[in-house]
Amino acid sequence: MRIDVLTLFPDMVKGPLSESIIGKAIEKNLLDVEVTDFRDYTDDKQNHVDDYPYGGGAGMLLQAQPILTAYADTVAKTADQYPTGKVILVDPAGRKFDQQVAQELSQEEHLTFICGHYEGYDERIRSIVTDEISLGDFVLTGGELPAMVMIDAAVRLLPEVLGNQESAPSDSFSNGLLEYPQYTRPPEYQGMKVPEVLMNGNHQLIADWREKESLRRTYLRRPDLLEQIELTTKQRHLLSDIKIEESEDEIE
Amino acid sequence: MRIDVLTLFPDMVKGPLSESIIGKAIEKNLLDVEVTDFRDYTDDKQNHVDDYPYGGGAGMLLQAQPILTAYADTVAKTADQYPTGKVILVDPAGRKFDQQVAQELSQEEHLTFICGHYEGYDERIRSIVTDEISLGDFVLTGGELPAMVMIDAAVRLLPEVLGNQESAPSDSFSNGLLEYPQYTRPPEYQGMKVPEVLMNGNHQLIADWREKESLRRTYLRRPDLLEQIELTTKQRHLLSDIKIEESEDEIE
Repeated sequence: MRIDVLTLFPDMVKGPLSESIIGKAIEKNLLDVEVTDFRDYTDDKQNHVDDYPYGGGAGMLLQAQPILTAYADTVAKTADQYPTGKVILVDPAGRKFDQQVAQELSQEEHLTFICGHYEGYDERIRSIVTDEISLGDFVLTGGELPAMVMIDAAVRLLPEVLGNQESAPSDSFSNGLLEYPQYTRPPEYQGMKVPEVLMNGNHQLIADWREKESLRRTYLRRPDLLEQIELTTKQRHLLSDIKIEESEDEIE
Repeated sequence: MRIDVLTLFPDMVKGPLSESIIGKAIEKNLLDVEVTDFRDYTDDKQNHVDDYPYGGGAGMLLQAQPILTAYADTVAKTADQYPTGKVILVDPAGRKFDQQVAQELSQEEHLTFICGHYEGYDERIRSIVTDEISLGDFVLTGGELPAMVMIDAAVRLLPEVLGNQESAPSDSFSNGLLEYPQYTRPPEYQGMKVPEVLMNGNHQLIADWREKESLRRTYLRRPDLLEQIELTTKQRHLLSDIKIEESEDEIE
């Protein structure tokens, strides 16, 4: 997979990308990431990439020219190895990012992220954009952090990226439920104990406990998720038990 | 404001934090950020911070001890200047992050972010957590990127952080609507023109156009937002016009 990031703050992107899982994917040649500073592509003699908005108003807007020229150059440079691929603009008007979107992005051969900054950008930047994606209903100072979030979520789904193949499917959301509570050594720390069942070595009891606690956490904290999946007969029974237990807890 | 970040990947956090708006806030002494590697606090002789999950399963879990000890140390170090403050764990089971949460965080004097990693963490880490926040329904390799997203969204709301005081309130979401399209020079680029109204200098017409296009974009792409705000009489009339215009567009 090839990922291009167009940004005014390449150092903001390069550091995190070289660490952790993404860095390992690059080392293993599973991923080729290029960060391009689109200031290098401005036609402006003073190297400006922004200008005042037509019609007045506060702040400066990114101009279309530097980004469109930088993008044309990355397309030309990658054309012999990769398709043009998706061009992603992080924008609150876009499709909401979730695990489904991460899955879709992980299937692509080439992704280009355009990171806006300043108070906004010239509308004509949208002419090269294929996908607008929103990380959520909040405002950030730039597109770099959300682009890295999306890259991280997509890249970890690539085959061979996670060291342990079993890890990804057992995460929250992969089965539509929140993850069950987990514990590691020591058995007691600052008076807090590991549940007995996890230490008795009975695999069936452990699996049952985990399924129930996963359901309980989802029921208590994200009941909306339960409406989106089809529960097994066993899960429906467990959920009935949980509802009784939790209502008893409230009364006590 | 003081922000502590507890992480195994301090370089992943320090780079982005020193750039852009957050870096400027630190320079202006509006913000004091300390990144702590909790590996420095492990009691383990081999410097391990993770161990196998009780009850079996794939992957390794972060142990409670290094994080709880590191946190106790940051509390001790900051106690004379800052209150203990909120301790935030990024977790899919948490409250969904949005502009309201960003506003609330920006009012705090002291925030501590705990960045999980590996396949999960020992449940007992939650004993020091005051707020669990979720960035959305997707899985990442660690808590660093979402912590930085939340820090960016909160810090830009601090007084004096944004150069232009007018910028923050005119963003998307600040009035409940998506932002109107914006344009800067040149008036025509690759055949794409700036709308005439923005260049004629009539402030009332420009304001009307912007209000209408802000409503139009919200209606077309995020109609759910319209249900959450109370429209003015003028906005209700504009929205009726937009609905007629858009249905005519579909027929053409």
